[in-house]
Amino acid sequence: MIAGVSTTGRAQAQQSKSRPEAAELKTFDLGDFKLENGKILTAAKLAYTTRGTLNASKTNAILLPSPYSGDHTSYDFLIGPGRAIDPAVYFIIATNQLGNGRSSSPSNTPAPLHGADFPSLAIRDDIEATHRLVAQGLGIEKLLAVVGFSMGGQQAMQWAVSFPEAMRGVVNLCGSAREYPFGFVRLEGAKGAIKADPTWNGGRYTEPPVAGLRALGLHWIAWAYSPEWWRDGEYKARGGTIEKQVDQWASGFLDQDANDLLCQAVKWQANDVATTPGMGGDLARALGSIKAKVLLMPSRTDQYFLAADVEAEGRLIPGSRLFVIPSTYGHTAGGGGDPAMVPVLNRMIKEFLESLGVEGNPAR
Amino acid sequence: MIAGVSTTGRAQAQQSKSRPEAAELKTFDLGDFKLENGKILTAAKLAYTTRGTLNASKTNAILLPSPYSGDHTSYDFLIGPGRAIDPAVYFIIATNQLGNGRSSSPSNTPAPLHGADFPSLAIRDDIEATHRLVAQGLGIEKLLAVVGFSMGGQQAMQWAVSFPEAMRGVVNLCGSAREYPFGFVRLEGAKGAIKADPTWNGGRYTEPPVAGLRALGLHWIAWAYSPEWWRDGEYKARGGTIEKQVDQWASGFLDQDANDLLCQAVKWQANDVATTPGMGGDLARALGSIKAKVLLMPSRTDQYFLAADVEAEGRLIPGSRLFVIPSTYGHTAGGGGDPAMVPVLNRMIKEFLESLGVEGNPAR
Repeated sequence: MIAGVSTTGRAQAQQSKSRPEAAELKTFDLGDFKLENGKILTAAKLAYTTRGTLNASKTNAILLPSPYSGDHTSYDFLIGPGRAIDPAVYFIIATNQLGNGRSSSPSNTPAPLHGADFPSLAIRDDIEATHRLVAQGLGIEKLLAVVGFSMGGQQAMQWAVSFPEAMRGVVNLCGSAREYPFGFVRLEGAKGAIKADPTWNGGRYTEPPVAGLRALGLHWIAWAYSPEWWRDGEYKARGGTIEKQVDQWASGFLDQDANDLLCQAVKWQANDVATTPGMGGDLARALGSIKAKVLLMPSRTDQYFLAADVEAEGRLIPGSRLFVIPSTYGHTAGGGGDPAMVPVLNRMIKEFLESLGVEGNPAR
Repeated sequence: MIAGVSTTGRAQAQQSKSRPEAAELKTFDLGDFKLENGKILTAAKLAYTTRGTLNASKTNAILLPSPYSGDHTSYDFLIGPGRAIDPAVYFIIATNQLGNGRSSSPSNTPAPLHGADFPSLAIRDDIEATHRLVAQGLGIEKLLAVVGFSMGGQQAMQWAVSFPEAMRGVVNLCGSAREYPFGFVRLEGAKGAIKADPTWNGGRYTEPPVAGLRALGLHWIAWAYSPEWWRDGEYKARGGTIEKQVDQWASGFLDQDANDLLCQAVKWQANDVATTPGMGGDLARALGSIKAKVLLMPSRTDQYFLAADVEAEGRLIPGSRLFVIPSTYGHTAGGGGDPAMVPVLNRMIKEFLESLGVEGNPAR
């Protein structure tokens, strides 16, 4: 996860002297979990961490669903004293999305659902699983907010549509409520890179498809940042040379499991709040049903989730607010990848969360 | 070459009832050809076609250098009665770039320079080879114009810098005079897709690396058009469904040789008129030395050669003219891929060529 888009946030956090201390990774048992496609994921598990303390009125909980190839640490750049999400103020729940290798995934599920036999997932499976954790496991009826980046932002939007009364606010960093065809075909390129390696063997590999994982990293490199980022030489501050950047990205996914990465990519491709039961495929209807206050934060130069698409979605969300991150760091800007934007994101999200009104906050 | 970017032009031409009749493929012997890197390409050959008749004053010749993965037929959408380049008016020389499988290439060069042992090339090797064909082979001192798309546009710009007196005009469709870092890393993704297939075996394959070639097609799919093109559903008119588009692109390079495609990609990555001997790495100096009239035609939505980059180059070229193709078809718009733009490109290039003044034209 060195070079994945989500890891820019991690790298950022690692550089920071005020990195939050590692929280204990906990597991929530989902039992035999029925997926949206009707299949049963047996003995399903959701891995998560919590930080801070839930207040008496249970109104200070913030959910952070992990992005593609990320995990419960992906939002560390937003967490800490003085940052957007202070554990002294908020109860922070950071979940690992299904398929990421920590929650139930192809790589960690025993036969007969191991690896290539793992069922395909939907974003709504994550929402259902996480809702059970929040409502049943933690006894929280209404979250203060769901904050997510990239696929985490997709989850945040789906939360707002599936459970409109279950949060006061939503922050969607560089994510969209629907995957548009451009994104779908770009993900075909990502999947194709892994599958080009016969070692992958239809998912039934006996050793990691290293060549495919390297090709995956090289697939993402030109998508992750903007042309301006490369033109202006920002990489010189990050890796010295283009060649170093290429090397870093080529090895950026070698510590991840190929089937897990494919599982997440397929889920990403199918993302669409309009297909939520009851919405009849109507995006305007789905987004119009949102009750939460929504802050949309696309990046001006995001080549995954175009700012124009997110803006168009915003026009369908009652009372939504828009802040286009003025960065050349493309998609990675929303994950903490742009050092200059990290304080900006922290301040804006902090103010947004405060505007939602926390009652009985132990720190106040 | 079904789905490669250059093939949109071919596909377009195939649909046209007025497709030019196939011209005989000829070969120009370059002998033991010294490359810019000092290596010798033994018994080198340049494959080309000609159409029309060279006039007595030898002033009506137009050179069309092939784009990446394309060939001498890639400009058929511009050729014919009523089109930009009428064989009744002009003498048309369509060359195959070195490495494309028709001129000297990894795939068609015997040992000891076969396949993986083929030397790496520079755009200037093409210019040197083509200049010999034009000047020595065909006895033409000054071309009317060099017209090129994509890597053909790169060749056109390098012609104008290397041999500033050798043409009156240059038309650069969706190409740039230098490969910028963003394009360099995107091409790393393209190369990585092929190399992910162990069948490729460092270029020493005994059967085609089909999985790698499929990954290459999927690499290109999201780059070729614009996000708007996908959003607006243009693909519905072309292939019916996204899935069909994906299938077409996945199989689009299966009839090409992997080493040939890599050879062209490496050449593309190194493109830079500023490194022309005598220019000292200075782009402004190189572009400022151009004597030809230059018409730059980037596509507004090109994700390979950004219109902004081409415009910036244009400001360094004395008297250059700019027409930004108003298309959502991304890079492919410059290769005839956008049906609505084909008549526009033809009219504009026709007028530009006429403005250059042909003397002793047999058809007039």
